[in-house]
Amino acid sequence: MSTALSRTEVYSLLSLSFACFGILINTFQGDGEPLIASIAFSGLAFASCYALIRWLGDAFVRRGFKGRDMCKLKQSEIPETMGAVCAVVYLFIIIIFIPWPFYKDIVAATSGGGNRDVMEELQQVETGRLLHKFPHSKLASYLSAVLSLQCIISLGIGDDLFDIRWRHKVLIPAVAAIPMLIVYFVDFGVTQMVVPTPLRPYLGELFDLGWLYYVYMALMSIFSANSINILAGINGIEVAQSLVIALLIVFNDALYLSPFAPYPHPATDSHLFSLYLLLPFIGVSLALLKHNWYPAKVFVGDTYCYFAGMVFAVDGILGHFSKTLILLLLPQGFNFIYSAPQLFHIVPCPRHRLPRFNARTGLLECSRVEFKKPLSRPIAEALKILHRLRLLDIETNEKGEVVSSSNFTLINLWLVWFGPMREDRLALGLLAFQTAVGFLGLFIRHRMALLVFTQDNW
Amino acid sequence: MSTALSRTEVYSLLSLSFACFGILINTFQGDGEPLIASIAFSGLAFASCYALIRWLGDAFVRRGFKGRDMCKLKQSEIPETMGAVCAVVYLFIIIIFIPWPFYKDIVAATSGGGNRDVMEELQQVETGRLLHKFPHSKLASYLSAVLSLQCIISLGIGDDLFDIRWRHKVLIPAVAAIPMLIVYFVDFGVTQMVVPTPLRPYLGELFDLGWLYYVYMALMSIFSANSINILAGINGIEVAQSLVIALLIVFNDALYLSPFAPYPHPATDSHLFSLYLLLPFIGVSLALLKHNWYPAKVFVGDTYCYFAGMVFAVDGILGHFSKTLILLLLPQGFNFIYSAPQLFHIVPCPRHRLPRFNARTGLLECSRVEFKKPLSRPIAEALKILHRLRLLDIETNEKGEVVSSSNFTLINLWLVWFGPMREDRLALGLLAFQTAVGFLGLFIRHRMALLVFTQDNW
Repeated sequence: MSTALSRTEVYSLLSLSFACFGILINTFQGDGEPLIASIAFSGLAFASCYALIRWLGDAFVRRGFKGRDMCKLKQSEIPETMGAVCAVVYLFIIIIFIPWPFYKDIVAATSGGGNRDVMEELQQVETGRLLHKFPHSKLASYLSAVLSLQCIISLGIGDDLFDIRWRHKVLIPAVAAIPMLIVYFVDFGVTQMVVPTPLRPYLGELFDLGWLYYVYMALMSIFSANSINILAGINGIEVAQSLVIALLIVFNDALYLSPFAPYPHPATDSHLFSLYLLLPFIGVSLALLKHNWYPAKVFVGDTYCYFAGMVFAVDGILGHFSKTLILLLLPQGFNFIYSAPQLFHIVPCPRHRLPRFNARTGLLECSRVEFKKPLSRPIAEALKILHRLRLLDIETNEKGEVVSSSNFTLINLWLVWFGPMREDRLALGLLAFQTAVGFLGLFIRHRMALLVFTQDNW
Repeated sequence: MSTALSRTEVYSLLSLSFACFGILINTFQGDGEPLIASIAFSGLAFASCYALIRWLGDAFVRRGFKGRDMCKLKQSEIPETMGAVCAVVYLFIIIIFIPWPFYKDIVAATSGGGNRDVMEELQQVETGRLLHKFPHSKLASYLSAVLSLQCIISLGIGDDLFDIRWRHKVLIPAVAAIPMLIVYFVDFGVTQMVVPTPLRPYLGELFDLGWLYYVYMALMSIFSANSINILAGINGIEVAQSLVIALLIVFNDALYLSPFAPYPHPATDSHLFSLYLLLPFIGVSLALLKHNWYPAKVFVGDTYCYFAGMVFAVDGILGHFSKTLILLLLPQGFNFIYSAPQLFHIVPCPRHRLPRFNARTGLLECSRVEFKKPLSRPIAEALKILHRLRLLDIETNEKGEVVSSSNFTLINLWLVWFGPMREDRLALGLLAFQTAVGFLGLFIRHRMALLVFTQDNW
C-alpha cells in the first residue's frame, strides 16, 4: 500500500473537509441543527480516518501490528489493527460534537453568554428552589455512551496487543458496558419493560425487571460485540456487515423523524441520539472499508469488531430499541449458534476456520475439519441430519463413519450452498443476505409487533 | 523480577482485599459513606495493581515494552510502560465507585427502588413541571473527569507504542482535556474569576474570562502533565513525586472537611470530589512505586507521567483549586524553566540528560553537555553568571571559552549542589525538596492569600 495519498485523493478529501467545515459553521445560525452538524462531522470523520489509515500504516507494521492474508496468492505483510485508528477518530468526533445537541439549551439557559448563575437566581426566586432547565440526563446518557465506547476501544487494543485468551475475550464487552450500566443505575434507573399482551393477565402492563435489566444490558453488549467478531475472516466482511447494520438502524431511526412521524414524537429524541452516534460511525467505517475491501490493504483487528458491536449495543440500549437491534443481528446470531458445536468443542475445532484458498482457481472453497477419532454416535447422527438439511457438508467412509465436515461458520455454509467463488463475491453474497434479513426484521418489528403489543411505538 | 507473588504477598494482598470488601459492604448502611468507600476502593486498587504488575510484566516484555536501566552495573531488560496497568486499574476503580457519592440521592429519589418515575410525577403535580432533585451536574463533572483521564491514558499508550515526536507529545494533554472542557462548556459554563483586591478598581470583583478560561484550563493540563514527564529519569522519581503531590493535595482537601472546617462548608463538595479522584490514585501509585523504586524492577513509561499529571489537572480544575495546584507543582515548574534553554535548543541538548552512572563508585554524577562549537558571547556570559550563582557547573578552557556544562535539569543541579550520590539518595533528596516546597506553597495559599484577596475560602 502506498502510504502517500494520491493527488486526486488529497483534493477530494480536502474539498470534502472544507464543505463539512462550511456546513458546521452555518449550523450556528438557528438552533445549532445537530443532525446537519452530525452529518458534517461524519464527513470530517471519513476524511481524517481515510488519511490517517494511509499515514499510520507503516508505523503499525513497524510496531508489530501486521498480518498475512491467507486467502491470497502473494501473501505480503499488511498492517493489522487499523480499526483502532477508526475508533480513535470516531471517539474524537463524538466528543467534539457534544455541544451541538445542547446548543439550543445552552443559548436558552445563558442567553448566549456565561451568565447562567443570574438566570438560576431568577428561577430560584420564582419557584423557591433551584430549577435546572438543562437536559442533564441526556448529557449523562451521552457521556456514558462515550465512556463505554472508550473502554471497549482500550480493551480491544489490549486484546490485539496481548492476544487475550478466548474465554476472557468474550467478557471484554461486559466490562466495557460497566460505565453505561453504572450511569444508567445512578441517573435513570428505569428497569421496567412493557409486557406483551398475552402475558399481561399474569405480569401486568409493566414488569419491573430490577437488577435483571442490568444483566440483560450486559448480555446485549456481549452478544452484539462478539457476534460481529465471530462472523469474520474474509476481506471486508467485518466492516461491511457493520455498515449494513448501521444503515439499517439509520433507516429505522429515520422512520421516527419529521416527514415520516408526527413531530414531536415521544421517541424522536432517542432516535436522534442514535443517529448522532451512528453517522460518524458510518463515516469512519467507509474509510476503513475502502482499504479493507478485497484485495485488502489493511486488516481491521479485533478492536474494530468489538468497537462496532459496542456502538450498536450502546445505541440500542440508550436509544431504547434493543429488541429491534436483536432482529438486525439475526445472521450474526445464527452464525453464533451454528458455530457453537465447534466453539464449545463438541466437535473438534481447528485453529483457523477461514475458507480455504485454492491457488489453482483463485477461488475460496469451504474449509473442512477432519475427524481423526470417530465421532460418538449421537453427534455423528446429528451431523448427518444437518447434512441432509443442507446445513453442513460431511464426508463418510465405507463404514458410514463421518470422517470430515465443512467448518461450522456461516461463511463456509454459504460456500457449501453456492460452491467455490471469489472472495469479494462471497462477501457480497453474505452482505445481501444480511440486508434482506435486516429489512425482514424491521418489517416484523413494525408490522407484526401489534400481534403481541397493544401498539407499535412508531 | 519474579512474576509469581510470594506466599506472604498473596496473604497480605488477600487480607487487604477482604478487609476492603467488608468495609464496602458496610457502607450501604447509612448514606453510602462515600469517603470511607473511596478509601476501601483505594485498598482494592493497590492490591489488584500490585498483583497485575507482577503477572503482566512478562507479557509486556514479550510485546516489546521493555527497556534497560542505564544507571546500573548489570543492565538487564525490564518491563516498560507498566504505568498503563496502574492507569487502567485506576479507571476501572473510579468508574465502579460512581454510585457511592450519589447513593444518598438515589435512595432519596427512588425510595431505594426503581420507581423514580412515580416520584417525578408527584413533583410534576406539585410544581407544574419536572423537577430533578438529582445532582446531575456533579455527575456530569465526574464523568467528564473520567473521560479526560481515559483519553490521556489512550494517548499515553499510543505515545509509548509509536514514540510520538516531542513537539506533538507536548500537546497530548490538551487533546485529552477536550472532553472536560466541552462538558464544562455545555454544563457549567462559569468562566468568572475572583479579582485580587489591588486590581478591583479596574476589573470589578468578578472578571469574566470568557473563552480565555478554556485556554487557561487547557494550558493547566499541558503544564501539569508535561512537567511530571520532564522531571524524570531515575528510579522511582516519577511515581514518588506524584505521590508527594497527591498527598499534599489530600492534606489540603482535608482542611476543608469536618473536624477542620465548619460543616457544611461551601467548598466541601469540591474537595470531596478531589479526594475521590486522588485516593485510588495513591493506591495504584504505591503499588507501582514498590516495583519502580531503586533498584527498579519495572519502568513506568510516559503513560504514567501523563496520567498522573492529568489526574492533578482534572482534580484542580473541577475541584476549583487550580491556583493552589500550581503552587504544589513549583519544583516541576522550576525544572521546566531551567530546562528550557536545552529544550528549545538555545544551548545544545544531548539525546539523554540522565545523570551519569559511575561504574567504579556505583554513584550517580551529573551528566554534562560538551560544546563542540564555541557558544555565542551573550549565552556564554549567561552560563557564567548561572555558574557563579551555583545554578550550573561549567568548564572553561584556557581562552576563557565555555567548553562544557552540566545538563539543565533539576536532577543534575541537585548533583552539582550535593556531589555524587547513590540513585535512591538522589531521589529521596528531591522528594524532600518537593515536600518542603509543597508545604511552603500551602502555607502561602492559606496565610498570604489575604494580602491579595478579601478572604481565604478555607
